[in-house]
Amino acid sequence: MGQNGKRPTLREIAARVGVSETAASFALNGRPGISEATRKKVLDVVEEMGWRPSYAARVLSGARSRTIGLVLTQNTATVDSELFFIRLMTGMQTVLSRSQCGLLMQVVQTVEEEIEVYRTWHAEGRVDGVVLVDLRADDPRPRAMVDLGLPAVLAGGPDPEGLLPSVSIDDAAAMTLVLQHLRELGHRHVAYVSGPRDLLHVRRRLDAFDAVVAEQLDGGHVISTDFTSEAAAAATRELLAHAPAPTAVVCDNEIVAVSLMLTLRSLGRHVPEDLAVVSWEDTPVCQAMHPPLTALHRNTHEFGADVAEQLLKILAGEPPESSQEQTPQLIVRASTDSARA
Amino acid sequence: MGQNGKRPTLREIAARVGVSETAASFALNGRPGISEATRKKVLDVVEEMGWRPSYAARVLSGARSRTIGLVLTQNTATVDSELFFIRLMTGMQTVLSRSQCGLLMQVVQTVEEEIEVYRTWHAEGRVDGVVLVDLRADDPRPRAMVDLGLPAVLAGGPDPEGLLPSVSIDDAAAMTLVLQHLRELGHRHVAYVSGPRDLLHVRRRLDAFDAVVAEQLDGGHVISTDFTSEAAAAATRELLAHAPAPTAVVCDNEIVAVSLMLTLRSLGRHVPEDLAVVSWEDTPVCQAMHPPLTALHRNTHEFGADVAEQLLKILAGEPPESSQEQTPQLIVRASTDSARA
Repeated sequence: MGQNGKRPTLREIAARVGVSETAASFALNGRPGISEATRKKVLDVVEEMGWRPSYAARVLSGARSRTIGLVLTQNTATVDSELFFIRLMTGMQTVLSRSQCGLLMQVVQTVEEEIEVYRTWHAEGRVDGVVLVDLRADDPRPRAMVDLGLPAVLAGGPDPEGLLPSVSIDDAAAMTLVLQHLRELGHRHVAYVSGPRDLLHVRRRLDAFDAVVAEQLDGGHVISTDFTSEAAAAATRELLAHAPAPTAVVCDNEIVAVSLMLTLRSLGRHVPEDLAVVSWEDTPVCQAMHPPLTALHRNTHEFGADVAEQLLKILAGEPPESSQEQTPQLIVRASTDSARA
Repeated sequence: MGQNGKRPTLREIAARVGVSETAASFALNGRPGISEATRKKVLDVVEEMGWRPSYAARVLSGARSRTIGLVLTQNTATVDSELFFIRLMTGMQTVLSRSQCGLLMQVVQTVEEEIEVYRTWHAEGRVDGVVLVDLRADDPRPRAMVDLGLPAVLAGGPDPEGLLPSVSIDDAAAMTLVLQHLRELGHRHVAYVSGPRDLLHVRRRLDAFDAVVAEQLDGGHVISTDFTSEAAAAATRELLAHAPAPTAVVCDNEIVAVSLMLTLRSLGRHVPEDLAVVSWEDTPVCQAMHPPLTALHRNTHEFGADVAEQLLKILAGEPPESSQEQTPQLIVRASTDSARA
């Protein structure tokens, strides 16, 4: 190691070998113009000093950083409570680790800040590519990635403008599956407590909801939330006051579902007798609730692995190709079907 | 941008300016030996090409990478299900973002792999410092960090060898608080379904458990698990078969608590009448359970922020100083006290 236990600098290496910094740099970068003897001496000293010169030197000479970036634009309260993001990240890790690739992450508050982080990371060569989540309507990010020339994959999608490849989940098929189940149980008036309407995956679910309601049910009521417990509790009260009263409700994630269940309980309403409840995400809380929650089960870990796999393929020079995950499974529990209790 | 939308290389910059790569590199690094006119030309071209040369160049010349590393050695199933890690990370982010500092993370399977990742990151100058979690008995990591000269802070602690500074939580005080509550409710035989015994925070909880049992209760039974639902379900059955039967149980995290509650329910046992239950971690699932779970509430988000703050101080040259978080609060709900239902 260098002085003070720190990584040795080019200056220290050069001084130790007794050559100029330029010569040391050329030796480290494998450039012509210095003798084999000098090159060997530099590499020996470098090894002796415990420095792997490759990273910064390689980046400076235009090579890969072996790092993937992930920026979450979120209210941290939501990121904190949802298991989705940690599952996505650990899923990505299983693939990235095999390629000795790191995951650089940051949490920001706005899409503009998010793009600024990508711009800086890319300009500084800190990441080879990025994964974008939660695509919104008129989202400036795909265009920004293309303009930057920064390889990117959408986790979720597809990209409506077709600018970026994606790994998507068929939200329409999943919503149809849920409503089919409720219809078979005899429900004719159904509600959907959704996430923010500017999220594209929420829009796809809304479109499918509206289509099924129009064709097969007597009524559908939608209340949009920002995914917080408070908004979900307010939505529950609004729902109960709605006429005609819905007999079943689809909740956009487990935070919304749990908050709705607790609000119903505090108001003395029973699940599923007064209201049947479905959660869009299956987490341990769904099984633990009383009654246990019917939920859409998707393999978020595998989803993350597929996203990372696709990005690594693109970085390896393969042509970008979008793909779609298997449609989530509906795990039926007592919150929709009391016979299962 | 350079050719093909890629970040321009030193070679491209030099070619555009019409100087040698060495001269371009010297200009970028602010070294003497080239004219002001050339330096200005290089910097203008660099700006025009959209490259911020600072990162790799600065790292190569011995400066900071502005990146903090976090490696989780875990069964991914556990990382996946626990909200602790995402909360720790988002908490760290609130502080790191203010300093334009990135968080580089990786998940590995063994402590040896973990140390190897630190060694590589440090050798390559990819991180300025790291945060270590889940310190174990005879943990080789603190010594390895000192030997590497890599600044590190323990999230949890204190370090028994005193090699590294830590931000710790008073596990003994927390366990005493829990047992005090159970004792006041009249419980005299108490069980503790713990995590792995080689985790130092589990050991500290065990020691406190044994001490309180010896002084103030009639009996205490400990079953250690690997934090999985399966192990927790098996522990529940073992507990019910134990004589004398414990009337209350402390579960080391929410995964264990939920699995134990579900196992009890499937066996027709009632909480708290047959067994009172406490969860060491308060997450939305604790409030959602039926009955709602009494839980130790710690502010993991703030804990992460404090850990990051401490590491940044050390990187800024301040002397390392260990600190302790406020003792977690006990949130009493119906799983220990049916009057609260």
